Amino acid sequence: MDLETALKNISAVDPARLGDIQDHLDRQAKPRGSLGRLEEFARRFAAITGRREIRKKAVFTFAGDHGVTEEGVSAFPREVTPQMVLNFLSGGAAINALARHAGAEVIVVDMGVDYDFEPREGLLLKKVGRGTRNFAKGPAMSREEAVRCLETGIELAVWAREQGFDLVGTGDMGIGNTTPSAAIAAVFTGLPVSSVTHRGTGIGDAALANKVRVIEAGIALNAPDAKDPVDVLAKVGGYEIGGIAGLVLGCAAVGLPVVVDGFISTAGALIAAELHPQVRDYIFAAHQSVEIGHSHMLERIGQRPILNLDMRLGEGTGGALAMELIDASLQALREVRTFDAAGVSEGDER
Amino acid sequence: MDLETALKNISAVDPARLGDIQDHLDRQAKPRGSLGRLEEFARRFAAITGRREIRKKAVFTFAGDHGVTEEGVSAFPREVTPQMVLNFLSGGAAINALARHAGAEVIVVDMGVDYDFEPREGLLLKKVGRGTRNFAKGPAMSREEAVRCLETGIELAVWAREQGFDLVGTGDMGIGNTTPSAAIAAVFTGLPVSSVTHRGTGIGDAALANKVRVIEAGIALNAPDAKDPVDVLAKVGGYEIGGIAGLVLGCAAVGLPVVVDGFISTAGALIAAELHPQVRDYIFAAHQSVEIGHSHMLERIGQRPILNLDMRLGEGTGGALAMELIDASLQALREVRTFDAAGVSEGDER
Repeated sequence: MDLETALKNISAVDPARLGDIQDHLDRQAKPRGSLGRLEEFARRFAAITGRREIRKKAVFTFAGDHGVTEEGVSAFPREVTPQMVLNFLSGGAAINALARHAGAEVIVVDMGVDYDFEPREGLLLKKVGRGTRNFAKGPAMSREEAVRCLETGIELAVWAREQGFDLVGTGDMGIGNTTPSAAIAAVFTGLPVSSVTHRGTGIGDAALANKVRVIEAGIALNAPDAKDPVDVLAKVGGYEIGGIAGLVLGCAAVGLPVVVDGFISTAGALIAAELHPQVRDYIFAAHQSVEIGHSHMLERIGQRPILNLDMRLGEGTGGALAMELIDASLQALREVRTFDAAGVSEGDER
Repeated sequence: MDLETALKNISAVDPARLGDIQDHLDRQAKPRGSLGRLEEFARRFAAITGRREIRKKAVFTFAGDHGVTEEGVSAFPREVTPQMVLNFLSGGAAINALARHAGAEVIVVDMGVDYDFEPREGLLLKKVGRGTRNFAKGPAMSREEAVRCLETGIELAVWAREQGFDLVGTGDMGIGNTTPSAAIAAVFTGLPVSSVTHRGTGIGDAALANKVRVIEAGIALNAPDAKDPVDVLAKVGGYEIGGIAGLVLGCAAVGLPVVVDGFISTAGALIAAELHPQVRDYIFAAHQSVEIGHSHMLERIGQRPILNLDMRLGEGTGGALAMELIDASLQALREVRTFDAAGVSEGDER
C-alpha cells in the first residue's frame, strides 16, 4: 500500500461501536466508570478491531543509524546500534524479556543501520540507507527516502493485519535518535529546542547544551516545513523514525490499534498524526518518557500516556508493558458479569 | 502470630541486598537506570524475598459491612456487600477477571459482612461481627475486635508465606467503606475531613456534604487517638479495613511484599504503617485512586503509586494490575543480558 492510498483509507473510529461497548461496560456490576481508563482501552480496542480479544501481539523494533552522531550528541558509540540489534535477535535485551512477559513477538526491522546483517529469523531487512546524513550539515535523507521509510512501515501494518495480529507496538533502536526526535518535536510544536531536548541515554550538561545547539543549527540550515511532515522527516528525521511513522499510519489505514512507545516512537507517531488527523484515534500512548519533549508531542497527538514509570529505554519496552494493561481491560470487558447476571442490586448514582 | 510478636518481627529491608541487585541491573546492557521504576520494583521484591521470581500470587479481598451506612453515605444499598461476595466466589467480578489475567488467586475473607455465608471454596469465614456499629453514634467496634481484625490479617500473611505465595495483594468490599477510610485519613494526616472525603461509588454534591458532616461528627464524638492506631481502627474503622491492616503488617513481619490496592486498602495500610514505621518498606502502592484523600495517605506511607488509571472500584483490582508490572520487572531482572554477555559496548554517561 502506498502512502497516498493509506492516507485515503484512514477514517474515524465508529462512534456507534464505541457507544455500544460503553453501554455494556455500564451494565457490568460495578459503579459506572469505576474501572477508569481500562474502560477506555477496552472500548477503543473493541471499536477499532470489532474484537474483544487479542489473538496475537507484535512489537516492531525499528533500527537505524544517524549521521548526526558525529556531532557528539550521544553517550554511547555508534556501533551499539548493530550490537543491540544482534542482542534483540538472540533474545537478551529488555524488549525481549518484556515482550515475552506480554506474550508479544519481537520483530526487528533494519531501516538503516550502518552494518550489513545476515538474514536471520525475526529480522526484516528493509534498509533505506546506511545511516542518515548529518542533519547539522544538510538534510538527513532525501524526500524519496522519507517516502520509502513511510511505505515500508505501511506495508508492515498491512502484513500484520493479514497475519492476524490484533495489536501492534512500536519500538526503536538507534544511537543518537533522541536528537532527530527532539528536532521533530521542536518543528511541530513550535517550542524552543531547549524545551524539548533532554539527556537521551545519559549525557551531562555540556553535552546537552551542545545537543541543543546542533539541533538549532540543523533546523535553521534545513528549514523543515511543519505543514509538510514528509519534509520534516527527510530533513531532520531518521530512517527508523520514518518506519515507525509509516507503521502508525498503516495501522490507522488497516484498522489496527497501535501502542506507541516513548520519545522516539512518539516522534514517529507525530509525523503520522500530522499527515492525517484521524491517525490519533488508533494510537495508544504507552508511557510517559523521562525525556522532557515527550509530553509536548503527546499533547499534540491528544493521547494520555498509559504508564508513567520513569522509563527512558525505548526498544518498545513501555509499549510491551502497556499491551498487558490493554489485554487485561479486554478480559474485564469479556468476563465481568452484568448487574442482572450477577444478581447485584444497582446503585443510585446521583 | 499475635500483634505484639508481629510488631517485634518487623525489620528494615537489607540495604546490602538492595545494592547487590542494583549492581546487577547496572551491568545489564541498557543505559543506567533506564528501566525506571521497574528497577525499583525488581530490587525491592528481590531484596525482600531473596527470590527473583514470583511462584504464586494471591489477592485477599476483605469484606465487611458498616453501621454508618444508616447515615446515607453510599450510593449503593447495603445488601450489595454479600451480593458482591457471592459474585467474587462465582468468578464474575472485576477482581476475578483481572486476577485471572495476572495469574493470581482471589481469596475472599468475610471479616464482618451482615450475612451468614455457607462455607465455600475461596471464602474464609473470619467474621468479627455482623457489620460495625454506626461511628456517628459511638465507636465502630471495641478495641478487642480491632485487635482481632489485625491478628486475623497477620495470620493470613503467615499462612500465605507457608503456602508459597511470594506476592500478596489487598482488596476490599464493603458498602459505605470510603466513609471510615476518609475518617482514618483525616485522623492520621490532620487534614480537614472535606480534603480527604470524596464520592465513593458515585454520590452527588448533597450526599457528599452529608458524608463530610457525618465523618466530622464521628471524629468529634469518638476522639480517636492518632498516636494509637488500634484506637483509630476501633473508633472510626471497619472490620475489612482492620483485616487489610493486619495483612499488611503480617507481610512485613514474615517478609512478603504486599501490593496495596486503592483508597480503602491504603487506609488499612496506613494503620499498619502507623503501628510500625518499617512496614512501609514492604508496601507496593498499586495505583492512584480517584478518591481525593488517597494521595495524602500515600504521602504519609511514602510510596508512589505504580499506576494512575482513574480507577475507583476497589476489590483489589488495581493491585492485580500492578502485580503484572512487578512480575514483568522480575522477568527483566532475570533475562536481560549484561553488557559483557551481550557483547555491547558501554557508554560514557557523563
